[in-house]
Amino acid sequence: MEKIRFTLKIAVAQLNPKIGAFSKQIEKAKQAIAQAKKQGAELLLFPELFTTGYAPRDLLGYDSFVDGNLAALKALAKLADGITILTGFVERNPAKTGKPFFNSAALIRNKKIEAVYRKTLLPYYNIFEEERYFEAGDKHLLVFDQGGTRFAVSICEEIWNQPEHVHRAYEHDPLSTLKKKKVDVLLNLSASPFHVGKPAERLELLKSIAKKHKVGIAYCSQVGANDDLIFDGGSVIMSKQGKVLASAPAFEEAVLVNDLTTPGRVAKLPKSRIEWIARALELGLRDYTKKIGVPRVILGLSGGIDSAVAACIAVKALGEANVLGILLPSRFTSNDSLADAIELGSRLGIETQTISIEPVFSAYERQWLESEGQPLTGVSNENLQPRIRMTWLMAMANKGNRLLLNTSNKSEIAMGYATLYGDSSGALALLGDLVKDDVYKLAAYYNADELVIPDRILTRAPTAELRPNQTDQDSLPPYPILDKQVQKVVERMELPAAKGKDWETFRRLYAAAEYKRRQLPPALRVTSHAFGTGRRMPIAATPIEL
Amino acid sequence: MEKIRFTLKIAVAQLNPKIGAFSKQIEKAKQAIAQAKKQGAELLLFPELFTTGYAPRDLLGYDSFVDGNLAALKALAKLADGITILTGFVERNPAKTGKPFFNSAALIRNKKIEAVYRKTLLPYYNIFEEERYFEAGDKHLLVFDQGGTRFAVSICEEIWNQPEHVHRAYEHDPLSTLKKKKVDVLLNLSASPFHVGKPAERLELLKSIAKKHKVGIAYCSQVGANDDLIFDGGSVIMSKQGKVLASAPAFEEAVLVNDLTTPGRVAKLPKSRIEWIARALELGLRDYTKKIGVPRVILGLSGGIDSAVAACIAVKALGEANVLGILLPSRFTSNDSLADAIELGSRLGIETQTISIEPVFSAYERQWLESEGQPLTGVSNENLQPRIRMTWLMAMANKGNRLLLNTSNKSEIAMGYATLYGDSSGALALLGDLVKDDVYKLAAYYNADELVIPDRILTRAPTAELRPNQTDQDSLPPYPILDKQVQKVVERMELPAAKGKDWETFRRLYAAAEYKRRQLPPALRVTSHAFGTGRRMPIAATPIEL
Repeated sequence: MEKIRFTLKIAVAQLNPKIGAFSKQIEKAKQAIAQAKKQGAELLLFPELFTTGYAPRDLLGYDSFVDGNLAALKALAKLADGITILTGFVERNPAKTGKPFFNSAALIRNKKIEAVYRKTLLPYYNIFEEERYFEAGDKHLLVFDQGGTRFAVSICEEIWNQPEHVHRAYEHDPLSTLKKKKVDVLLNLSASPFHVGKPAERLELLKSIAKKHKVGIAYCSQVGANDDLIFDGGSVIMSKQGKVLASAPAFEEAVLVNDLTTPGRVAKLPKSRIEWIARALELGLRDYTKKIGVPRVILGLSGGIDSAVAACIAVKALGEANVLGILLPSRFTSNDSLADAIELGSRLGIETQTISIEPVFSAYERQWLESEGQPLTGVSNENLQPRIRMTWLMAMANKGNRLLLNTSNKSEIAMGYATLYGDSSGALALLGDLVKDDVYKLAAYYNADELVIPDRILTRAPTAELRPNQTDQDSLPPYPILDKQVQKVVERMELPAAKGKDWETFRRLYAAAEYKRRQLPPALRVTSHAFGTGRRMPIAATPIEL
Repeated sequence: MEKIRFTLKIAVAQLNPKIGAFSKQIEKAKQAIAQAKKQGAELLLFPELFTTGYAPRDLLGYDSFVDGNLAALKALAKLADGITILTGFVERNPAKTGKPFFNSAALIRNKKIEAVYRKTLLPYYNIFEEERYFEAGDKHLLVFDQGGTRFAVSICEEIWNQPEHVHRAYEHDPLSTLKKKKVDVLLNLSASPFHVGKPAERLELLKSIAKKHKVGIAYCSQVGANDDLIFDGGSVIMSKQGKVLASAPAFEEAVLVNDLTTPGRVAKLPKSRIEWIARALELGLRDYTKKIGVPRVILGLSGGIDSAVAACIAVKALGEANVLGILLPSRFTSNDSLADAIELGSRLGIETQTISIEPVFSAYERQWLESEGQPLTGVSNENLQPRIRMTWLMAMANKGNRLLLNTSNKSEIAMGYATLYGDSSGALALLGDLVKDDVYKLAAYYNADELVIPDRILTRAPTAELRPNQTDQDSLPPYPILDKQVQKVVERMELPAAKGKDWETFRRLYAAAEYKRRQLPPALRVTSHAFGTGRRMPIAATPIEL
């Protein structure tokens, strides 16, 4: 009996939808269906909200958008010829009260939508806001039989509420009925966003569920990046002993086909924390440029560590031909910085160009002196320089139809250590969720294969070079301390027990910079708590401990 | 009997809390208590979440913040000497599962917290995200007796779910039990954000509730602005016949004291839609500057309608001594524009200063020509100019510790008709939720008392003056059409039935500008759907009908 039941082949389509690109989603589905059928799969899973892509957010406010998603579901149904399909979609809530939609999964057999399952646990925390749009379903798990096997359908969050967890967001565990319902295989459609540590946590969770409930598992998650959110995928087919039989590569589209007992192809995953981050950021940049249709980028190369690492990511993500580096020296730029930036560009094989900001800088200074009767000094003078650089970079970006990359790191952003409309500008913040130490680690990672980042960039004290002999440490807590403060206060939302001078500096600068963060470009998210989609901080407020 | 029951005097404290400023809130409470007691009130209401201010959002993630709020509640309790107090506060959820807090009201008698009521209906739509933080209470309405009168306590949203409404967000109407519980007076603690039409809608709602349920009403809402959200107040004491006995002035702090039968002081409200908007924007700007502690502002005066109206608002809000207008002409700036801007400044009594952007503009152009071998033309050249203006304005703002005001209107923002890091910059967008026609109407409003905006500013065709003979209509649908499109597509989230050239232009520009809107400063909200807190739009997406 057992053997018969588990020989049915399941396909898991780890696909990369673009929000609202209904016809592109259908094209991807067609190819996945062809591949699944070719390999003998009887059942094919698509991710959560696959028709729209995750997350459609307020686009759901447009009737035509929801209609487009329903038309895509119909088109998918027509394709379910000789194969059973499970796909996520947005269902309208027909009730007169309550939220307007359900986050649903359709079971399609013989080209007909045979059943619809409505997600019961709707995450609302951090980057999630499903309760803004979706009413919770009231029937836990959809059960159906195929090929002598009994399947249960669940959607994303519903596997993340195990009673073993210390903090649980919901009282009910939808999986608690698996045994009673005699389920052989648990199916889960997901759009599970990446952060460091999440893939391993997810895999352990799935293993524990398989063992605890004695079910095989087919887990299908979306892959790809949408704005600041990156989805690594992590799709797997797992035996009821919790053994991974087949798994999709991280950060790539793939169609897995396997049964529930036979060992199949298991993808190699990134080996280190930093490799996970690097691969995530590369995908984040690649998808953003691809999905908005501007494949070429531009960035300022300061000769410092941040722009060097950003350039490495850009080259890996887009190829050297699509990356243009601009050096924008002033009187405060050291020869070392210039030489290092040029050397970096040459090692990366990207085009570089040098534009001195001095003529314009001097023009501002002369005019200020004439009009105000005294020279422009201090922070006002320092801020001039990044704003001139931004203006050059945006002019070059406009002219060449390129995206400007932002290279601020999380430690700087926490402290507001960037000039608003100067180096805070850009279409996408590549390093915006990395503390300074991680930027160095990424540099080492990119240097491991081939020495692309010149040594001096790695060893010099970080400096904005906006005045003579300036270093970041003149204004900020030392980076090793600052990084830990950022992880504590921003990522874990804790406050330090011992208060001292560095905490006072942190507290003051962190609170005062909220208005700058509000105007930041999307910052690719790689930690659990990034500056971006998942954050809601008032500006005109008295924040923590003030 | 009836007369005895309704002679008890109630005080309603329409106060303006700053988010997280616990001790300031206590100070305000002390004064309100003194005033209420002096006028013989037995019961005093404070607004929803009064201890923290509405809305604290992710600051709730910090334990010390929540502790601060609980300490403030204790301090308030100590003040409840000889008067009963009802106040909103954040209560921790002691349960192991579910959301971490309740949005609660404490009933304080004889300096003791006698009962706590937990809000049952938690709004999650538009600018609200209470389900992100709060678990819903499961007991509808708190009932208590005082002075022979029976009171029921409700919190904000709980009066907004009447069965008569066409769309209802929740199935249960908490007010349905008022009769059974023999309630004489319904109390409601609110933080009800303003948009045009809301105050009248709110008052009608309260009247209909009073009549339907035959209850007197004491309604206490927060007033003031927090970032982009403005609260007009609208606090009232109303007889069970639905007659307003006492009401607070719009946009101001006030402590109402009245019984439930005797006509008292009824505040005059703004007389026109435009007066509501003007008063809202003035408060929005005043509170933002006050709460962040930078009371002086700077803005560019182009000689156009937007900056003229923004200057009027700033003068009304902050006084002419706190407003600095900068003229930043280029070769494309007409003499009319300059003359009009100067005239405006002089009529408003504000300091103005003129800084030509030509020296810097020419420096950029010369250097571009040298480096690229051909002149910088087209949009790249046009974008240079607002970025140079931004750089001047920010230098002046830095030097003088002033806030830069953004003067983009909603129609422009919808179309992306602003240069990113140029005229899109600023600390607060004053006109960001006003279509162009409303900007003209505001101009007429400010001109009604005294002719402050020169006639030619009102009659000239709008132009960015970035190239010779440019007008906005070269790039945009005509404003009367564009304004209607914005109201339809952005505010009502509908699409036009008939498609044509203007719709194609709108659709293309609207979709392409999402990345600019992401980096916009907070834009004061005066419509139901502003660009800001209540909006979640993906950038890298195929939006409506593309």
